[in-house]
Amino acid sequence: MTGWRGGAAAVATLTFDVDAETPVLAEDPGYAEHLATMTHQSYGPDVGVPRILDTLDDLGVPATFFVPGWVAEHRPGLAASVVERGHEVAHHSYAHRPPTSMTPEEERADFERALEVFAAQGIEVAGHRAALWAASRRTPDLVAGYGLRYDSSLMADDRPYRIATRHGEIAELPVHWSLDDWEQYAFLPRPRIGSVIESPEKALELWRAELDGMRRYGCLFNLCSHPFLTGRPGRIMALRRLIEYALDRGDVRFARCREVADAAMADQELPARPVPASPDYR
Amino acid sequence: MTGWRGGAAAVATLTFDVDAETPVLAEDPGYAEHLATMTHQSYGPDVGVPRILDTLDDLGVPATFFVPGWVAEHRPGLAASVVERGHEVAHHSYAHRPPTSMTPEEERADFERALEVFAAQGIEVAGHRAALWAASRRTPDLVAGYGLRYDSSLMADDRPYRIATRHGEIAELPVHWSLDDWEQYAFLPRPRIGSVIESPEKALELWRAELDGMRRYGCLFNLCSHPFLTGRPGRIMALRRLIEYALDRGDVRFARCREVADAAMADQELPARPVPASPDYR
Amino acid sequence: MTGWRGGAAAVATLTFDVDAETPVLAEDPGYAEHLATMTHQSYGPDVGVPRILDTLDDLGVPATFFVPGWVAEHRPGLAASVVERGHEVAHHSYAHRPPTSMTPEEERADFERALEVFAAQGIEVAGHRAALWAASRRTPDLVAGYGLRYDSSLMADDRPYRIATRHGEIAELPVHWSLDDWEQYAFLPRPRIGSVIESPEKALELWRAELDGMRRYGCLFNLCSHPFLTGRPGRIMALRRLIEYALDRGDVRFARCREVADAAMADQELPARPVPASPDYR
Amino acid sequence: MTGWRGGAAAVATLTFDVDAETPVLAEDPGYAEHLATMTHQSYGPDVGVPRILDTLDDLGVPATFFVPGWVAEHRPGLAASVVERGHEVAHHSYAHRPPTSMTPEEERADFERALEVFAAQGIEVAGHRAALWAASRRTPDLVAGYGLRYDSSLMADDRPYRIATRHGEIAELPVHWSLDDWEQYAFLPRPRIGSVIESPEKALELWRAELDGMRRYGCLFNLCSHPFLTGRPGRIMALRRLIEYALDRGDVRFARCREVADAAMADQELPARPVPASPDYR
Repeated sequence: MTGWRGGAAAVATLTFDVDAETPVLAEDPGYAEHLATMTHQSYGPDVGVPRILDTLDDLGVPATFFVPGWVAEHRPGLAASVVERGHEVAHHSYAHRPPTSMTPEEERADFERALEVFAAQGIEVAGHRAALWAASRRTPDLVAGYGLRYDSSLMADDRPYRIATRHGEIAELPVHWSLDDWEQYAFLPRPRIGSVIESPEKALELWRAELDGMRRYGCLFNLCSHPFLTGRPGRIMALRRLIEYALDRGDVRFARCREVADAAMADQELPARPVPASPDYR
Repeated sequence: MTGWRGGAAAVATLTFDVDAETPVLAEDPGYAEHLATMTHQSYGPDVGVPRILDTLDDLGVPATFFVPGWVAEHRPGLAASVVERGHEVAHHSYAHRPPTSMTPEEERADFERALEVFAAQGIEVAGHRAALWAASRRTPDLVAGYGLRYDSSLMADDRPYRIATRHGEIAELPVHWSLDDWEQYAFLPRPRIGSVIESPEKALELWRAELDGMRRYGCLFNLCSHPFLTGRPGRIMALRRLIEYALDRGDVRFARCREVADAAMADQELPARPVPASPDYR
Repeated sequence: MTGWRGGAAAVATLTFDVDAETPVLAEDPGYAEHLATMTHQSYGPDVGVPRILDTLDDLGVPATFFVPGWVAEHRPGLAASVVERGHEVAHHSYAHRPPTSMTPEEERADFERALEVFAAQGIEVAGHRAALWAASRRTPDLVAGYGLRYDSSLMADDRPYRIATRHGEIAELPVHWSLDDWEQYAFLPRPRIGSVIESPEKALELWRAELDGMRRYGCLFNLCSHPFLTGRPGRIMALRRLIEYALDRGDVRFARCREVADAAMADQELPARPVPASPDYR
Repeated sequence: MTGWRGGAAAVATLTFDVDAETPVLAEDPGYAEHLATMTHQSYGPDVGVPRILDTLDDLGVPATFFVPGWVAEHRPGLAASVVERGHEVAHHSYAHRPPTSMTPEEERADFERALEVFAAQGIEVAGHRAALWAASRRTPDLVAGYGLRYDSSLMADDRPYRIATRHGEIAELPVHWSLDDWEQYAFLPRPRIGSVIESPEKALELWRAELDGMRRYGCLFNLCSHPFLTGRPGRIMALRRLIEYALDRGDVRFARCREVADAAMADQELPARPVPASPDYR
C-alpha cells in the first residue's frame, strides 16, 4: 500500500481533548468557587473518558487523547489507562493557556512542564496540539525542538502536510472548527463558552457530510471531541453511529495520529506548507 | 426491586423552575418598568403552571416544582396548588440571585428566608436547587445544615451521587444544560437571556436522544423546564410527546426528586463525589 | 356564534410591522451613511409590502399593518394602499424608539405625532403596538387616552385579555418572541440585529407547532412579520404555506386585530389582567 | 429573447469572494501572529479555489470571483487562473477594509490601488463589490467614475436595478445575507466572525427555498460564497447539489455578473432605485 492513506478513501483520526477543568481555570481561576462550572468540567475525565474508552473497545477503533499536563498530573492514572487500552496520549500544553497569549519564555516553560509530567508517568508522546488551537509563531519550533513528530492545531489544508521548522520538518495534521464538538455542544454561561446546544442528530448530519466529502477528496477526517461534551449519553450514541457509518463505508481507515504523521512524512506527494510568513499588509 | 432505579433502565424527574419575575429582577430591578419583560415572566405561573398541571394529570406522571420563596410569597396559592395535585415543591432560593455572587451571610439569609415562606405556607421541602444552578462552595453545607436531603444544581455525573458536607451526606441529582428548556427556547432582548428560538421539534429530538442514551447507560433524566417557556402551546405539546415517548418505552420510571434522592442514598453502588476541592492551578 | 373566537379553535391575526429604516436610525442616525443597511431596510416597504399584499389577495385573508408614523409620512401612498386592499393600518409609534427609553413627555409627543400623520392621511387607527414591544408603564394609558381600543405589545397570556387603564379598559392582543419573524430571519452586522439566519422550513415548523398547540388551547395566533424579512422570496413562500396549512385545518379564523379586539371586549369570559404593579422585590 | 432574464424564470450568479487573510488583518494586523487564524484563511485560495474551479468545470457553469487587490498581488497566478478557466474576476477593494470606515481619500486610494494591481496583471474588471458589503455614499460614484459597469453590494431589491451616480448609471446586482455562506458556516473565535456552524444540509435547504421563491418572482439568485468556507469538502458537495438542483429545474440561467449587468442595463422594465437620500429623521 502506497501513500499516506494506505489505499483508503479517507483516514479518520478520532481525537479527544481531555481538558477537564483547565479551560475555565485558564480563563479565570476564580471559577474554582463555582461548583456547577467545576463539575461540568470534571465530568469529562471522570464519566466521559471511561465511557469513550468502552465505546472505542466495542467498535475496535484506535484513538488519540490530547491531555494537558496539569490534568495528567492531577488524575495520576488517567493517561496510563488510555495507553493501556491501546490508544495514544499526546501533548496538549500544561495549563491549557493559549500560546498566542504567552511570552516566548512562558510558552517554553509550559511546554516543558507538560513533557516532564508525561516523562514522570512513563508516557511517550509523539505529537502536540496547542491549547485552543492557538499556536503561536514559535509553537512549531518547540514541537520539533523537543523531538515530537507532529502538530495538530492548524488549518492550511484538509490533508496532512509538512511544516519546516528551525529543527527540521514535522507533520501537521490539520484541524477545523467544523470537526470539533465544541461548536455543536458547548454551553456554559460563566465563562461563556457557547450559545446554542445542537441536537446530536444535527452534529451527526454535519460530520457525515464532511466525512463523505473527505472520502471524495482524499482527506484526513480529524475529529476533535471533548469528553465533558461528547461523553454525555445522547452524544456518545451519536459518535458511535458516526463511527459505524464510517466503518460501513468500507473505505475509511482509522488510525492514531502518530501513525498518520509517520505515513504523511513518508509520502512525498503531500504538500509542504510553510508556517505563514508575517504578512506585508499595508 | 433493588438499586436506585428500581429496575428501570432510566429514571425521569420532570422538574419545573417556577421563576416568574425573579430572574429579570435579580438582573436589574429596573426591568419592573418594562411591561413586555414583566408579562413575559408572569405568563409562567399564571398561564404555564395550570397548563402544565393539567398535562401531568392527563399523563399520570409526578413532578417536582422548584419555586423561589419570593414567588411563593407573592402568589399565595401557587405552591399549595402544586402539592394538592400530588407533586413536590422544593427550595429554589428566595430571590433567584446566584449564590456565587453573594457573601456567605447573604446566601444564608436568602436561604433561610425561602424556608420561612414555605414553613408559613405549610409546605414541606426536602430538596434545593440553586438559582441559575450557581451553587457556591457553601451551598451543600446549607442544604444539609437545614435538614434538606438533596440538591439538584451540579453536574459531576449523570446518575445521582452522594456529597459529603459538614452536616452529613446529601444526594445530588445532577442537572445539565442540554436537559434545560432555557437553552432551546429562551429569548428576551432586555435582559438578553438567549439568542435563538428553537423549534419544539428540535428540542424534542435533542431530549429523546438524551433519554435514549440514558436508558442505555442507566442515568437520571433530570429535565428542567420553565413554565414561562415550556408553558407555551407548541412547547407543552412537545413535552407531552416526550413524556408519551418515555412511557411507551416501558422502561423509564417517573418519580419526584425526593423519592429519587431517598432511593439514591439507600443504594451503596452509587458513587460518592466530593465537592470539588479548590484546585491547585498554577 | 358566541365567544371571542366565534366558534373557531384558534384565531389568527397576520400582522406586519412596516418598520422600514426606522429601527436602524433609532439605533444610530449615522447608519444613514451605510448604504447596505439602508437598502436592507427600504426593501421592506418597496419590495416586500406589494408582494405581501398580493399573497394576501391570493389567499383571501385579512391582515393588520403596524406602521410607524415616520414611515407613513415618508412614503405617502403606503398606508392608503394597505387600506384599499382591505387591511387594517395601526399605530406603531412615530420614530420606532422604545417607550422604555423615553421620558413621559417624549413618549406622549411621539405617540401624538404618529396620530397626526395618520389623521392627515385620512387613515383611522384603532390599535397600537409599541416599538420593539417595549411598552412603558405609561403606554396603556396613552392608548386608551387617545381613544384607541387595543394594544398589541405584551405577553401575559396567549389569549386576548383586558387591561384597565386610567381611561378605561382596552384589549390586549398578546405577542410573543416565538411568533415573530425577527428571531428567525434577522441578520445585520451593523447594527447587529441578529446572529443566525434560519431556513424558512424551520420557521414554518416552529409556527405550525405553535398554531397546532393554539388550536388545542383556544388561543390567538398573533404572528408578527416584517416586510424587510418575510418579503424575501423564499420566506413569503413559507408564509403562504403556513396560511394554507391553517386554512386547510378548517378551524382557524383569520381576522384583523381590531375585530379581534372588539370581540374580546365583548366576551366576559376572557380574563382581565392588570398592568403589572411595580413589584415589591427586596 | 427579451428582458434581462433572457426567458429564464430566474438568473443565478455564483460569486466567490476570495478574501484570504484580508478580513482578519483588516480587523487587526496582529492576527498575523495567530497561526490557526492565518491558515484558516489561507485555505481559501490555496485549497478552496482549485476545488471550486474543478467543480464549476464539472458542472459547466460560469462564475464571478471578487478578489481584493492585496490577495491578487500576493498570489500572482490566482486571478489569471480564474480567468483562464472562463470565469470573471471583479474588484473587491484592495485591503478589504469597509468603505464606511474610511475617509473619502482613503476609500479612493484603496479603490485605485486595486485597479492598479489588476491592470498590472492584465485582468479586466467590469464590476465591484464593497468589502463587507459596507458601501459608503461615495462608493457608487467611484464605481462609475472609474468606468466599471456594475456594483454588487446593496439590497434595495432582489432583481438587478439601476443606480444613478455623478458619472452616469450603473447596474446594481443586489446581495443579501441569506444568500451568503458566511452566516451559515463562519466560525472563528479570534476575531469572532460567527457563532454557529450549520450543517451543509441546512444551508442547502435555505438556498433551495430561496431559489424556488426567486423562480416564482423572477429574481437574481446572487449567491456569495467564500473559498475558505465553501471550499471545505462537505460544503462543496452541498454547493454541487444546489447547482445540480438548479440545472434540473430547467428554468434557471447561470451567468457571470458582467453579463447580467449588461442585460439589466438594456432592460428598461427593471426599476431605477436612487442611492438612498440621507433621511430626514427627527
